[in-house]
Amino acid sequence: MRGLLVGRFQPFHRGHLEIVRKIRGERPDDPLILAIGSEQESYTWENPFTASERFDMIRQAAEEANLARIEIVPVPDIHQHALWVRYLEELLPPFDRIYTNNPLTESLFRAASYDVVNPTLFDRTHLEGAKVRAALAVDREWEKLVPPAVVKILVKLEAVGRLRLLAPGLGHPVGSEA
Amino acid sequence: MRGLLVGRFQPFHRGHLEIVRKIRGERPDDPLILAIGSEQESYTWENPFTASERFDMIRQAAEEANLARIEIVPVPDIHQHALWVRYLEELLPPFDRIYTNNPLTESLFRAASYDVVNPTLFDRTHLEGAKVRAALAVDREWEKLVPPAVVKILVKLEAVGRLRLLAPGLGHPVGSEA
Amino acid sequence: MRGLLVGRFQPFHRGHLEIVRKIRGERPDDPLILAIGSEQESYTWENPFTASERFDMIRQAAEEANLARIEIVPVPDIHQHALWVRYLEELLPPFDRIYTNNPLTESLFRAASYDVVNPTLFDRTHLEGAKVRAALAVDREWEKLVPPAVVKILVKLEAVGRLRLLAPGLGHPVGSEA
Amino acid sequence: MRGLLVGRFQPFHRGHLEIVRKIRGERPDDPLILAIGSEQESYTWENPFTASERFDMIRQAAEEANLARIEIVPVPDIHQHALWVRYLEELLPPFDRIYTNNPLTESLFRAASYDVVNPTLFDRTHLEGAKVRAALAVDREWEKLVPPAVVKILVKLEAVGRLRLLAPGLGHPVGSEA
Amino acid sequence: MRGLLVGRFQPFHRGHLEIVRKIRGERPDDPLILAIGSEQESYTWENPFTASERFDMIRQAAEEANLARIEIVPVPDIHQHALWVRYLEELLPPFDRIYTNNPLTESLFRAASYDVVNPTLFDRTHLEGAKVRAALAVDREWEKLVPPAVVKILVKLEAVGRLRLLAPGLGHPVGSEA
Amino acid sequence: MRGLLVGRFQPFHRGHLEIVRKIRGERPDDPLILAIGSEQESYTWENPFTASERFDMIRQAAEEANLARIEIVPVPDIHQHALWVRYLEELLPPFDRIYTNNPLTESLFRAASYDVVNPTLFDRTHLEGAKVRAALAVDREWEKLVPPAVVKILVKLEAVGRLRLLAPGLGHPVGSEA
Repeated sequence: MRGLLVGRFQPFHRGHLEIVRKIRGERPDDPLILAIGSEQESYTWENPFTASERFDMIRQAAEEANLARIEIVPVPDIHQHALWVRYLEELLPPFDRIYTNNPLTESLFRAASYDVVNPTLFDRTHLEGAKVRAALAVDREWEKLVPPAVVKILVKLEAVGRLRLLAPGLGHPVGSEA
Repeated sequence: MRGLLVGRFQPFHRGHLEIVRKIRGERPDDPLILAIGSEQESYTWENPFTASERFDMIRQAAEEANLARIEIVPVPDIHQHALWVRYLEELLPPFDRIYTNNPLTESLFRAASYDVVNPTLFDRTHLEGAKVRAALAVDREWEKLVPPAVVKILVKLEAVGRLRLLAPGLGHPVGSEA
Repeated sequence: MRGLLVGRFQPFHRGHLEIVRKIRGERPDDPLILAIGSEQESYTWENPFTASERFDMIRQAAEEANLARIEIVPVPDIHQHALWVRYLEELLPPFDRIYTNNPLTESLFRAASYDVVNPTLFDRTHLEGAKVRAALAVDREWEKLVPPAVVKILVKLEAVGRLRLLAPGLGHPVGSEA
Repeated sequence: MRGLLVGRFQPFHRGHLEIVRKIRGERPDDPLILAIGSEQESYTWENPFTASERFDMIRQAAEEANLARIEIVPVPDIHQHALWVRYLEELLPPFDRIYTNNPLTESLFRAASYDVVNPTLFDRTHLEGAKVRAALAVDREWEKLVPPAVVKILVKLEAVGRLRLLAPGLGHPVGSEA
Repeated sequence: MRGLLVGRFQPFHRGHLEIVRKIRGERPDDPLILAIGSEQESYTWENPFTASERFDMIRQAAEEANLARIEIVPVPDIHQHALWVRYLEELLPPFDRIYTNNPLTESLFRAASYDVVNPTLFDRTHLEGAKVRAALAVDREWEKLVPPAVVKILVKLEAVGRLRLLAPGLGHPVGSEA
Repeated sequence: MRGLLVGRFQPFHRGHLEIVRKIRGERPDDPLILAIGSEQESYTWENPFTASERFDMIRQAAEEANLARIEIVPVPDIHQHALWVRYLEELLPPFDRIYTNNPLTESLFRAASYDVVNPTLFDRTHLEGAKVRAALAVDREWEKLVPPAVVKILVKLEAVGRLRLLAPGLGHPVGSEA
């Protein structure tokens, strides 16, 4: 059966990669699903990249790291927590174990009889989505925080310029002109 | 005709019960509709309980208090205030009086020619949704704040554990893993 | 625990009433939930009456027939069958038995471990929603097909005129002017 | 105050233009709102043109015919007839008269105390949306059925080719590959 | 071709009018589209007025100022920034230039090859939506901030009373009773 | 770059497999995206299987056939054809070629400058979704129509029983009880 790791991956950074590498190493025969949460969000400070861009980052980084048997699936927010586990069961290929450090996610999946594992996080001082985005917005040493394949994609997307526009206090929501 | 009381009832506490008891006492022949607002919300700090759980709390508490002729109807948010009165007219059984202390609700219903009554609130020092939720999250003397029938339901739902997971600063929205 | 009967009740006719009467008679201690399906639909040939109007019909007919412990809950269509059982669990007060003659509904609830009962239908020659609506559209002997309390409501709503406008071949969807 | 004419205008043909011309002539001081229904639909046989394209057809035809004081507003379907009048009141600039030949639309607006007028239709043998679309699909004498300004737009849009792809029995819904 | 100016116009004030006047003066032959953003919002502090009311303010002010060739189109929020430009292309009549001072809007339209112009803002000390709303809520010298035609509409709508109800710290979201 | 093949895959049959095998053979270096259309649909005659079940069929069949570099992505219907290409660009990993035999899909993608290829269909006498579903509903020789890996999944899902319930004239939409 497959394992499931949910994240927003804004962007996919080295902390994410290490978690994936570790899970794949421990269970080499089981495919791993990476669900890209908040699929519909993009061009905001919290969610700068489209699902398409995040999908590409994950796949390129996984191939670069020789990580096989990774399924990547964008998942929209449904805003009804009580339906969330059931919704994922209907959308994703079958899975029986979920990797999460979010206590609520853990409790919802435990209530539905899933096996829940808390993955070890790597270097949270630097490897956290918000910190990577902040480093991008000021164009300072962000290249060390993401896998080389993701560096390439971020350069091609001119991510530094996009994050600068979206940074709080500077950026403005689209369509909200006063 | 029926009266209408809108609330989120997260959870249904003794303040709510006293309002209902008073309305029923004053107009024993008129049924009273309790509309459960934000029906689709659950497993968040502001809205920890599902519509199903809130429905059950209200019905059990009403039966325990011998309050008859109570209709309970879950109502989704529609996020278009200008349509709200019309939407309730289409969804709920006919009513001609609304009980509310919210000045905007009052003004929307007055504009639609409804009779509006401001119910007296009971002991707002303790009997307010946010305070009941905070008491639950730290498991401190919450049993006095809700009717006995609701105590039973909250125990069965392991509400203390759920509120602790959802408490601000501790809880995390489902699916928002960084 | 409660039983659950789902229907559209367009309108609530004597066949519905007999089913409800029989269920209440067999299990006098268990409340019965009547879920009003396709809540958002109205002013079409298949769904001429609003949820509000259908709620009122059911309640008045139940009181007239001295049927107590009936919960009435409007339910929107969600168009995702795989989520349907879970959605009802989140919305309705707790139930453990479902009354249905729809084989698919039966199979979805059986898969979720519910007790399923097939209620006996009464006089399907005349007591079927489509036939009652057709009788209304031509204003012919429809009064015998619905409970007296529903007759009163249909008269007040000028249902004959509404059904005539909506009848296939005559009526036209709102907003679909060519 | 303004008058209101609702249509889908797929496409805007000479029958529509004559109705507009007549209304403007009878009430030269009152602006007229043309609401483009089913705004979100396009690239189907029933609704081949986008709201943008239909807006452009109406405006160009109105200017060509020297018809002033025409407001054009795209309107999405809301699929809740009981809310429709209220929704239009919230969306459109204020109006007090509606032009329609649809009996249900008429009855909904009369119930909300609007003045309703049935406009005379022009040459329904040829001037009906479905017939104009059929003429386009086979590229036969459609130019006589629409105002000259609309001919220009339909040519620019290569409407003949689009309608041929969408024609029933030939076209296929996007995304529905078996 | 047409120009496009997006705003929420809550309310339409003299700063908006000056921008429109300047654009019309510079390009007298090109119509200008005013897209009313967040169409579905109303009766909140950020968005007190319905699309209908805002449409009326803009049209009356434009006529008072003898500004012709203005198209006014309400636009709903779609909450998917990556689709926003494409959505406007489908909804609005054709345009080829956008007026905006929002850097993100600018970058999305530039990426889609549109001509982008930054309009000069007028007297931002007073002429900003939030300041006009604050002046209304305390009923102090707001008449100088909006065109005379808008004063009339705001008086008729009893806007001072509405804004006072909605003011932060005083107002309460509809349906959010605790 | 990647190719894109859109389908509903209800179920994934040998005709689908042959198309995929041919595309992979012609362009062994380019990954292929299989987009599962109408993701949200299930338990209907046209769409009996959930996205989860279809995902599993495709992956198992691809592995059985030694087909690598296949991305599988469920895609919801958006019901706005004019936004469809843009929506797929936002959701799916980057692609530059689309395989389709649907003329409208072809025209929408050509208009957006994509490379479009018409794949050869295999044995349409038997290998068509509707025919495979009909064979399942009567449990007759359907095993020859799908890859062995899909046979196993269909047996496990008790697909024959499900299809029999859903067959037209027998099945009934969930929640549509009269």
